[in-house]
Amino acid sequence: MACGGLLLQCAEAAKARHFKWEVSNMFWSPDGEEKVLIGINGQFPGPTIRAKAGDTIVVELKNALHTEGVVIHWHGIRQIGTPWADGTASISQCAINPEETFTYRFVVDKPGTYFYHGHYGMQRAAGLYGSLVVDVADGEDEPFEYDGELNLLLSDWYHESIYTQMVGLSSKPFRWIGEPQSLLINGRGQFNCSLAAAHTPGSNQCTTSGNRQCAPVVFPVLPNKTYRLRVASTTSLASLNLVVGNHKLTVVEADGNYVDPFVVDDIDIYSGDSYSVLLTTDQNPSSNYWVSVGVRGRQPKTAPALAVLNYRPNRASRLPALAPPATPAWNDYAHSKAFTYRILARAGTPPPPATSNRRIELLNTQNRMDGHIKWSINNVSMVLPATPYLGSLKMGLKSTLAAVRPADTFGRGYDVTRPPANPNTTVGDNVYVLEHNTTVDVVLQNANALANNVSEVHPWHLHGHDFWVLGYGDGAFPGDAGYAARLNLKNPPLRNTAVIFPYGWTAIRFVADNPGVWAFHCHIEPHLHMGMGVIFAEAVDRVGEVPKAAVSCGATATALMANDHV
Amino acid sequence: MACGGLLLQCAEAAKARHFKWEVSNMFWSPDGEEKVLIGINGQFPGPTIRAKAGDTIVVELKNALHTEGVVIHWHGIRQIGTPWADGTASISQCAINPEETFTYRFVVDKPGTYFYHGHYGMQRAAGLYGSLVVDVADGEDEPFEYDGELNLLLSDWYHESIYTQMVGLSSKPFRWIGEPQSLLINGRGQFNCSLAAAHTPGSNQCTTSGNRQCAPVVFPVLPNKTYRLRVASTTSLASLNLVVGNHKLTVVEADGNYVDPFVVDDIDIYSGDSYSVLLTTDQNPSSNYWVSVGVRGRQPKTAPALAVLNYRPNRASRLPALAPPATPAWNDYAHSKAFTYRILARAGTPPPPATSNRRIELLNTQNRMDGHIKWSINNVSMVLPATPYLGSLKMGLKSTLAAVRPADTFGRGYDVTRPPANPNTTVGDNVYVLEHNTTVDVVLQNANALANNVSEVHPWHLHGHDFWVLGYGDGAFPGDAGYAARLNLKNPPLRNTAVIFPYGWTAIRFVADNPGVWAFHCHIEPHLHMGMGVIFAEAVDRVGEVPKAAVSCGATATALMANDHV
Repeated sequence: MACGGLLLQCAEAAKARHFKWEVSNMFWSPDGEEKVLIGINGQFPGPTIRAKAGDTIVVELKNALHTEGVVIHWHGIRQIGTPWADGTASISQCAINPEETFTYRFVVDKPGTYFYHGHYGMQRAAGLYGSLVVDVADGEDEPFEYDGELNLLLSDWYHESIYTQMVGLSSKPFRWIGEPQSLLINGRGQFNCSLAAAHTPGSNQCTTSGNRQCAPVVFPVLPNKTYRLRVASTTSLASLNLVVGNHKLTVVEADGNYVDPFVVDDIDIYSGDSYSVLLTTDQNPSSNYWVSVGVRGRQPKTAPALAVLNYRPNRASRLPALAPPATPAWNDYAHSKAFTYRILARAGTPPPPATSNRRIELLNTQNRMDGHIKWSINNVSMVLPATPYLGSLKMGLKSTLAAVRPADTFGRGYDVTRPPANPNTTVGDNVYVLEHNTTVDVVLQNANALANNVSEVHPWHLHGHDFWVLGYGDGAFPGDAGYAARLNLKNPPLRNTAVIFPYGWTAIRFVADNPGVWAFHCHIEPHLHMGMGVIFAEAVDRVGEVPKAAVSCGATATALMANDHV
Repeated sequence: MACGGLLLQCAEAAKARHFKWEVSNMFWSPDGEEKVLIGINGQFPGPTIRAKAGDTIVVELKNALHTEGVVIHWHGIRQIGTPWADGTASISQCAINPEETFTYRFVVDKPGTYFYHGHYGMQRAAGLYGSLVVDVADGEDEPFEYDGELNLLLSDWYHESIYTQMVGLSSKPFRWIGEPQSLLINGRGQFNCSLAAAHTPGSNQCTTSGNRQCAPVVFPVLPNKTYRLRVASTTSLASLNLVVGNHKLTVVEADGNYVDPFVVDDIDIYSGDSYSVLLTTDQNPSSNYWVSVGVRGRQPKTAPALAVLNYRPNRASRLPALAPPATPAWNDYAHSKAFTYRILARAGTPPPPATSNRRIELLNTQNRMDGHIKWSINNVSMVLPATPYLGSLKMGLKSTLAAVRPADTFGRGYDVTRPPANPNTTVGDNVYVLEHNTTVDVVLQNANALANNVSEVHPWHLHGHDFWVLGYGDGAFPGDAGYAARLNLKNPPLRNTAVIFPYGWTAIRFVADNPGVWAFHCHIEPHLHMGMGVIFAEAVDRVGEVPKAAVSCGATATALMANDHV
């Protein structure tokens, strides 16, 4: 497990990797339609960071947007001891103002497949993301073998600007953003045409020539080798499924943690998830094969994304003879659950504590408030403050927390199968204060949305921690009755993102051993924007010295000025 | 002149006027096409402020945008003693972050026709503006009589978002934003249809019924009365001309200063200008009349805006029988110069000092830089700093000013009739440091742009001051030779905005008696965005105590923190 618990030993080999990035708006045509997006150093997606476990990553991030702040979250990196580098606006740091540079400095302590993305407004959906891959430290080995790697960063793509999307989500009456126009693989997709038109009645064949920004992605491979596919999803809305024509996939890693290997025909990837799967190129080498990515969990109105698995020396432009493989039916939840339930920890993974000190039960509901539609947790829809929590709590600015703390339970008896009896919600800063080194269970309870017979999948992502996924259940969480008996304490997987299935519940456990202020939220961008999250303020008194630049805004800036005037 | 020089006497009658505003994005259809714009309290344009000379205006401005900062500039208000309330991002204050509230508090010391607008990025072009009208103090009289008022806030309107516009202006290759799609009167216009289709071959009659956001503006008047039309322009690009069918206009005020009344058929209004004109309803009362606003100075691709002068008791919906009056030919500069040159101070206006202590000559050129197109002043294209000047200069943060100060002259011999021989420019913070109570002349020199035979009109606006417009000339400024002889020191008008005509120069004079940091720039939004401005840092050591909230960002925030960490 590389330097996981052996930081001192690894320190010698580890090194600092420096990056200078500039974030700016630019014209780009990810799916053939031109749009203004947010890129880094003129690239979309942003540059891939590649490091070794134990390395220190140093990113000097200049904001070259004109009027917008920016932050970058390093998704899956726990930021042990550096909570101010977690890159969450209003939570871990002041947004970086235009023309300012902020230096992110943090250790990637654990090998795995990660990514990074904007975490302010809906800037992730505007294209602010890229891959972050951490290899094992020198002298360490992965617990499986492979001959090469293929990287697949998956996303979805809207033609409307995020500004228009955000106004719609905040409007009365509410305007839903609809389904994305395209799915992208490594920032490339095809709108209004198909790479495999011969197999798609009524569609036009895409022009695949040249190096257009929407050109198909080609993964060159050699026959009879084993490849590690690193797959991560930073979609705004879509839950995805990936399948490679004729090839089996062996799942070996989830969210930067090794899992007990298992073989499948396809994998589900929710927004915020990352996986490594092994693929052996054991098929007829005279053909190329399709990689197909389709939508799950919502009636798809977005065409699957395709890429070419190119068996060399075949030409990359030689389209696969077979039709693109179909992903499972969008509403085949049994298929999805079967996949998710098979994800278990690889032998050697640290086991969870046998018991917890506290259980926080979070009911996920869709609600109304003053003509707006919101997502709420225990009837509070999250609204983030002007001054980030980490600084204001560290500096003891009491006014930054509401007097009434949010509830640890929603009680028993809530009918998760029907729209909320009382659909009204409130907004607030639903901050849960966690004591140092306590073991915390969180039960996420899904429910029916405002419309009858609607309950969606929500992938919840925790910052600052991996957690053990102890179990899942259908229907209402039963409470203490039989709770412990239903948990897997033997080999639960460690992850940073866990899904709740429609009408079901998911239980996770983690140890509050990383002082900081951490977001825990649905990773679907419009859902987070509509309030679907909570905050964990964890042993803030133990947080080390916060860099000035992380607190040079709002109340934390003015609190340090001696008088009312300067 | 009300409380101009009599603040103490007026203080008794003056009062504070409080406003609570919230700035947010919203859907709106100013010309029938829906778009996301920036509104205030759900309105577009923002609420009109109406006050009396000597009043204190207090605006608690909450930023409810999602990721963008915001400021509001009170155009024409000199902010005597309150330079931090001038509302210029990067210059007078830190941009107000999302969810923050900043309180603008300033005295409107002088009656007149003003307006306010965003002054960050191109937020003005996104719709962030409104009217500000200051009446004479109680017991004072205007120096002319009228029976009623009509308010006309003029703007132009693009269907592309400002984000797309800004990216295009900053791109390599450069992408010009083109001409606006519509002209708006009080935020209303008509795209792709005409209110007077009967007179406009090939056009469709607009649907004028109901209270649509693009419904025609109606000005109800009674026959045989005199009305004061308050006209101001906050256009992004367009220079305008206003004409009212069959009616003469008597110009009595320009930019909050009384002028020697003169009668015209039409008035030019450049972006940043404001005028009061008197109109007597002495025409056939059985008819209504068109108010027509057209484009000047650029080959118009935007249809004139129309409004209805509604002689009561005629129905407002009764369209004028006559065709809308035509505005002058766009390139009839002789007409424009004749109008501008007629604007002279009303008797009683303070005269300028007879001589100046310093003359700053500013050559306006269009240039190239590393594949970008820029506007430059004495070969420096303005780039604003992350930390606003007022705070950083007041606090003596030396690193905020470049070591080399910009030049006071561009020398003689520059050929203004041709594209620049050396089109390359540099970028920088072109800050001119002004000594307290010195009299400063500024000569603005226009020139040929990058393309042959192109020289545009540029309306320059000065913050913190009115200035006397001493004179205009065609061609290259002659330097000392005959300079004084060409100036009008007898009755030059006081203004805050002055135009330079193609290939010509304009000379202004002001007394540096208002400590602060003041922008001086072309009021055309894309030109300013491309660097067309300079900064006057005026006796900053005499600036009073700056409110914390104006400096709670960047280097001015961190400078006040004792250590590197918090």
